[in-house]
Amino acid sequence: MSSSIPTLDAQALLAQVRALGEVGSGAPGDGRTRIALTDADRAGRDLLVQWMRELGLDVRVDRIGNIFGVLHAATHEGDRQPLMIGSHIDTVRNAGALDGCYGVLSGLAVARAWRAAGLAPSRAIVVAAFTNEEGVRFQPDMMGSLVYAGGMALQAALDVVGIDGVRLGDELARIAYAGELEPGAIAPLEYLELHIEQGPILEAEGQSIGVVENLQGISWQKITVHGTANHAGTTPLRLRHDAGYAAAAVVAFLREHVAAPSGGTTLATVGSLRFEPDVINVIARKATFTVDLRDPDEQRLQAAERRLGDFLVELAQREGVEIETERLARYEPVVFDAGLAAEIEAAAVRLGYASRRMTSGAGHDAQMMARIAPAAMIFVPSRAGISHNPREHTDDAQLVQGAQVLLEVVRRRLAN
Amino acid sequence: MSSSIPTLDAQALLAQVRALGEVGSGAPGDGRTRIALTDADRAGRDLLVQWMRELGLDVRVDRIGNIFGVLHAATHEGDRQPLMIGSHIDTVRNAGALDGCYGVLSGLAVARAWRAAGLAPSRAIVVAAFTNEEGVRFQPDMMGSLVYAGGMALQAALDVVGIDGVRLGDELARIAYAGELEPGAIAPLEYLELHIEQGPILEAEGQSIGVVENLQGISWQKITVHGTANHAGTTPLRLRHDAGYAAAAVVAFLREHVAAPSGGTTLATVGSLRFEPDVINVIARKATFTVDLRDPDEQRLQAAERRLGDFLVELAQREGVEIETERLARYEPVVFDAGLAAEIEAAAVRLGYASRRMTSGAGHDAQMMARIAPAAMIFVPSRAGISHNPREHTDDAQLVQGAQVLLEVVRRRLAN
Ligand SMILES: NC(=O)NCCC(=O)O
Ligand SMILES: NC(=O)NCCC(=O)O
Repeated sequence: MSSSIPTLDAQALLAQVRALGEVGSGAPGDGRTRIALTDADRAGRDLLVQWMRELGLDVRVDRIGNIFGVLHAATHEGDRQPLMIGSHIDTVRNAGALDGCYGVLSGLAVARAWRAAGLAPSRAIVVAAFTNEEGVRFQPDMMGSLVYAGGMALQAALDVVGIDGVRLGDELARIAYAGELEPGAIAPLEYLELHIEQGPILEAEGQSIGVVENLQGISWQKITVHGTANHAGTTPLRLRHDAGYAAAAVVAFLREHVAAPSGGTTLATVGSLRFEPDVINVIARKATFTVDLRDPDEQRLQAAERRLGDFLVELAQREGVEIETERLARYEPVVFDAGLAAEIEAAAVRLGYASRRMTSGAGHDAQMMARIAPAAMIFVPSRAGISHNPREHTDDAQLVQGAQVLLEVVRRRLAN
Repeated sequence: MSSSIPTLDAQALLAQVRALGEVGSGAPGDGRTRIALTDADRAGRDLLVQWMRELGLDVRVDRIGNIFGVLHAATHEGDRQPLMIGSHIDTVRNAGALDGCYGVLSGLAVARAWRAAGLAPSRAIVVAAFTNEEGVRFQPDMMGSLVYAGGMALQAALDVVGIDGVRLGDELARIAYAGELEPGAIAPLEYLELHIEQGPILEAEGQSIGVVENLQGISWQKITVHGTANHAGTTPLRLRHDAGYAAAAVVAFLREHVAAPSGGTTLATVGSLRFEPDVINVIARKATFTVDLRDPDEQRLQAAERRLGDFLVELAQREGVEIETERLARYEPVVFDAGLAAEIEAAAVRLGYASRRMTSGAGHDAQMMARIAPAAMIFVPSRAGISHNPREHTDDAQLVQGAQVLLEVVRRRLAN
């Protein structure tokens, strides 16, 4: 081993991104599905832990299943001032290979750079993979980092019941990732996260690097409409209490009267919607759907929530249905650490990569970690802005640029 | 056995309605689910066949699974002029006990009346239970009677694939109800069907008997919207191709711009709607839903179909989604036999039951049988107009009145 400057092994990084992307992959075109705490998630975790061990990292798992690979510092003092690089490896259904994984594996690439240089870092480098970032099965999203940052009690998180009726704590034990470390035990001095943008901005502007200054607020609700099942052919309009129509009216309202008039700052999405009994000639007795509202401005996000709430009251009255709402997640907008953002921007300039400051549309673990440490994020472009889709793509060269920026920032921070 | 006038055994009828209602029943309040050609349907069929045999009826099953219980006439000549009384015993999901079953079991009650009187009827009485009237699993609805009446080729019906991906012919063989009789082989001289109204009119007007003069047209389609899965937090409005929103917009359009402005003659229902991947933070890639349009007037039904079609074209263009439509069923309005309707009305008058002429909102096997024989229907009230719901209810006394009218009409027809 030659003692030199830590440098990126781009091929090793890209190979790991591809290999992890195979875990949980289905039919061609279907992408991969590694929903939190499923067998596929376990397989991904096992591979990650194996890679951490191969790099000689000290692997720790906490009680909510977050995985940490610690590259110890040269000194005891340095070990007490860890720099954490994290993201997640769970996915949505039929996902791309990059969302989350790219950030975790770039963290490994940073650790590998020190290893390959034959150096112990001046401060510990901790590579983190947080549990259940996507929030597809268990809500809220970003759950592992939220618990880690003290924003949700561990027991409450373990007791969350998923959309499949299974308790999170039971699944965690089943896949053997209920660790012993107390969440929060490794307190990072700073937190960095590299991620694909998942949106169209960088590509549209021909930029290589996004310096993420802030992250929009997220409001998730589950809404259940209780109507009356009745015959599609015999029930006159005035006697209908159609839970399906009421749900559809909400979906249309959100798009047409909440998102569109906001000029685009408020986003509203109904990604999940189910009817019961879901039969062609039966007026729906029940409709259950999710609402995802986002806005970088807390006041506007609250205004959107109020408009939805008012509409639900009016609709329930008008249609003679009962409407229940349940809060699944609520995060205020977050402003990242200005010093770290400046550091990222400076690194991009030094490397000669075009960059721009931006807001994150997606939620990320950095958003939670910002509660307990200075945090910032680096974005790379997403082709056509497509994510949460098997067609999610970033060119290899762009992935490497992002990892170079991360490495450069870590080098700087560890040189301080 | 005393030789006397055939009279109704009301208790036997009500007991059979209750007993058949137990087959396929689930948790309390969930009603029963005997969807066509499932194991529960088989259990219902087995019970019906057992009851037919107990009455000494000659049981025949045709190639589409329709079941016939023949009470032979006193003469060979009378056997060639059968009067058929039919309906169905399949149900929707979480159904009431009466829809269909009441009609079939009233047919048995008529046969029982002749048996108990120790008489052979002057013409054969054929009690029919048609396959897959509800059309929940396999479309179109009224399939058994449609095939019987020559409106759909047997092979095409056997090849229909259900919403669960299973071929109808395979299920029919599996439950051992693929009979040998050619559909249509027993050609009825006339056809009668007794059914609950499934709507609110008789109850609202305090009438006991509905003399059904006609039956509205039914248009069923399956619509599939193909959009693009993308991230709920990062995808700006202008880049969304949200299959879920597009589907919801159609549901709202049908109610607000097709059904409501028609003044209530056109009914539009979306009873089934599914999103893919159905995930909270993923814009739906695909939405699949059914459309049920009805109107007693063919021109207005066609106008409703055209307005829907025009809206789909405009919507696909506006949202950048692809929309596929598939026809599941299309029946023009039917006018029943005026002579039989008059006979029903006269019977109600003789029995002293208040009656009114009316249109059927629901589809019925009589609608298909009207293609090959003079046909008519008798309705009894449905409490609060509720049907396709476990709360479907008709008072016992009203059920008995309907069966009395049926028996009276049959006596008259057989006396001719
Ligand atoms: N990055 C990412 O896709 N996070 C999932 C949480 C969200 O919906 O924003
Ligand atoms: N009677 C009845 O519920 N028939 C089912 C077909 C329809 O949807 O009208």
